[in-house]
Amino acid sequence: MADLIEARVLKGFRDFLPEAEIERRLLGEILESVFRSFGFVPIDTPALEYAEILLGKGGGETEKQVYRFQDHGGRDVALRFDLTVPFARFMAEHRNELALPFKRYHMAKVWRGENTQRGRYREFTQCDFDIVGSESAAADFEILLLMRESLRSIGAGEVSIRMNHRGVFNRFLAHLGVADKSVETLRTVDKLAKIGKEETLSLLSGLTGRERGEKILSFIQPKGSWDETLAAMAEAAGGEGPDTERLAVLRRFMVDAKVADVFVLDPSITRGLDYYTGVVYETFLDAMPSIGSVCSGGRYDNLASLYSKEKLPGVGSSIGLDRLIAALESLGKSKRSAGFARVAIACVDEALGGRYQALATRFRAAGLPCEVFSEKRKLPQQFASAEKKGLAWVVVADGPALDADSLTLRELATRTDRTGLSAAEIIGTVKAG
Amino acid sequence: MADLIEARVLKGFRDFLPEAEIERRLLGEILESVFRSFGFVPIDTPALEYAEILLGKGGGETEKQVYRFQDHGGRDVALRFDLTVPFARFMAEHRNELALPFKRYHMAKVWRGENTQRGRYREFTQCDFDIVGSESAAADFEILLLMRESLRSIGAGEVSIRMNHRGVFNRFLAHLGVADKSVETLRTVDKLAKIGKEETLSLLSGLTGRERGEKILSFIQPKGSWDETLAAMAEAAGGEGPDTERLAVLRRFMVDAKVADVFVLDPSITRGLDYYTGVVYETFLDAMPSIGSVCSGGRYDNLASLYSKEKLPGVGSSIGLDRLIAALESLGKSKRSAGFARVAIACVDEALGGRYQALATRFRAAGLPCEVFSEKRKLPQQFASAEKKGLAWVVVADGPALDADSLTLRELATRTDRTGLSAAEIIGTVKAG
Repeated sequence: MADLIEARVLKGFRDFLPEAEIERRLLGEILESVFRSFGFVPIDTPALEYAEILLGKGGGETEKQVYRFQDHGGRDVALRFDLTVPFARFMAEHRNELALPFKRYHMAKVWRGENTQRGRYREFTQCDFDIVGSESAAADFEILLLMRESLRSIGAGEVSIRMNHRGVFNRFLAHLGVADKSVETLRTVDKLAKIGKEETLSLLSGLTGRERGEKILSFIQPKGSWDETLAAMAEAAGGEGPDTERLAVLRRFMVDAKVADVFVLDPSITRGLDYYTGVVYETFLDAMPSIGSVCSGGRYDNLASLYSKEKLPGVGSSIGLDRLIAALESLGKSKRSAGFARVAIACVDEALGGRYQALATRFRAAGLPCEVFSEKRKLPQQFASAEKKGLAWVVVADGPALDADSLTLRELATRTDRTGLSAAEIIGTVKAG
Repeated sequence: MADLIEARVLKGFRDFLPEAEIERRLLGEILESVFRSFGFVPIDTPALEYAEILLGKGGGETEKQVYRFQDHGGRDVALRFDLTVPFARFMAEHRNELALPFKRYHMAKVWRGENTQRGRYREFTQCDFDIVGSESAAADFEILLLMRESLRSIGAGEVSIRMNHRGVFNRFLAHLGVADKSVETLRTVDKLAKIGKEETLSLLSGLTGRERGEKILSFIQPKGSWDETLAAMAEAAGGEGPDTERLAVLRRFMVDAKVADVFVLDPSITRGLDYYTGVVYETFLDAMPSIGSVCSGGRYDNLASLYSKEKLPGVGSSIGLDRLIAALESLGKSKRSAGFARVAIACVDEALGGRYQALATRFRAAGLPCEVFSEKRKLPQQFASAEKKGLAWVVVADGPALDADSLTLRELATRTDRTGLSAAEIIGTVKAG
């Protein structure tokens, strides 16, 4: 025998065994059904693209993490590392085939050669949803509402969506006379929850001087209610503007739609990326805020500027599926299950393989997923195997029992048998049970 | 402005716009629901693996097509080119975590740097389902039945599953005295449909001599009914054997399960790969046999021999989703649709964004996917936009109409308005319409 090759996956990559994969799929299906209920449509893009397109301006942390190589034709290619850049390229390429505003979702794997010591994966699933081609407050609000509905639908419990507006922050910085430091300031403030007030103040002071650092730190403290915080923000920014007006309109929409309790105006939310220009938001599970934001995003005023001269404003959000699943598991709220079938047909006589499947076909047609056991083993073994697979019932029948439609139904939990049941009676019992 | 980067995808790769992606997703969902109804469970494996694992023995056409490169850690890695090899590695690695027989499905993308001039894609979706850990005829039959049910469920019309048994073929070749040429002979016979009888005979004669070539060509002709063909095969192979017995049992199962008409015993079906050891099969759409097999597979007696000493016999099949979708489109049977929502709420007054969403929430809760238009445009424009998106109805309401729950419902197909409807009446009308 030749030497065996060791069966193993790459560091940072994972197999999904049935229980974990069922959990992921069910979660994905629930999210998709919510997106669809809002009229959002799915797209997909290639896993592999020209490196030039994915890396764009290039540089920075991202470039180091990207899986990049030469393909057979000598092309410089890379695996997508997020779904935003491919979406920008997609919109530039297909703009004329799509009606605007365009509402899309995209749930797919992405790859980053990150340092796995921080518990990060190198292959993970992203789930993005955006409205492109609208500058309206209605679009902002729809994304916010969709975030809320998505997270409610998966049973994650209560959530808080903490939001802010980049425009107010920028006006405030201009008012302070440090507009030229806005990118670094926003990135520093974004770290507040992670590094704490002291360290933030120290970094801000280094950037803008101690006095301004203190003002910035004071600006980013919530001031109480939404209205109080908004008033304080406007004042610090030198007065009302289109940005504070947008926040006021969104607040009205929330009250009108009776969802206001979920949304918190939080001037410390900045999202690190330069990309955002309007509202920005992060979402925390009330039962587990410590895992960080499970759904974040914001408004941008030009999605595809690297690839197209046409301006494409939009607003979107991204759910971190892996983080969310980890949270649901910790909270005991995950939808793990060993399988889909609830009933199996035991193999009493191997010669009856065709008739067992005929019976199973009746169950399946009635909406009962049904497994047929292929191996003739002792019944207790078959029952034990069924229990291990998460089944609740096993049908036992030999040839005469099938002929007479007089079957035995084993309830695994109680270890009791009901005899003399017809197929129709079994369907009724299993569906009710 | 900086130079723009040209927005384009790599040759052989595709964007899926909403209509095409909806079609793919709906097809995938139907197939999954059939797999689940049989008690099959999903797994997933990494897109990227050690090249050593994916290429195994290496060599041949496959190796040339694989996307292979060095990762950041200098590891020799490759993108999966099918789902079978990762599944073999998966079973070797997780054998002790899984109960056998193990019934799994896996629907995922794979990558091959194939020559795109033959209309092949470099990124495509495979859909595999297998039962591992069973040598039984019941497992063979279940896979065959699942193939039939899968293809029926997606509305591809009638199908023919053409099948054979490698064992009979091998015994026949041994009987002829050319057992040592079996691999080449099987590969040659596999090309029959593509290259025709003449060319096949010529190739076979080159391998085994003219007389034997003619006998092989005669062996692979169907002889009429299943029973007649089976009898002729047994005779040519030197008598009955476990292989002909297996075919006879499967035939009995088909008759018992009342699905016999779909299955054809066809001694020319060999599947080129050495991998198969028992039954082999291909599936053709009766309405479009010319596109070739849309679902193929067979029994193997050792799935994971490269990675494990433990023998893992099994049986499985693979649906070529891209080919199947192309066929459904040609037959006018594809499930293309522009979107999921059937009703939209027009934007009559931008200040009502929150109330429009509150109304939409009622529709969605009643199971009606509903899009809310975010832009205030003239109503005829909003109606036209809704039609383009495949919607059937638009709700029109200003503030007083919302207050009075007295709404207008536009039916787009007939261009008629119904006025004075409550939200509940609209739900009833749209659901019935």
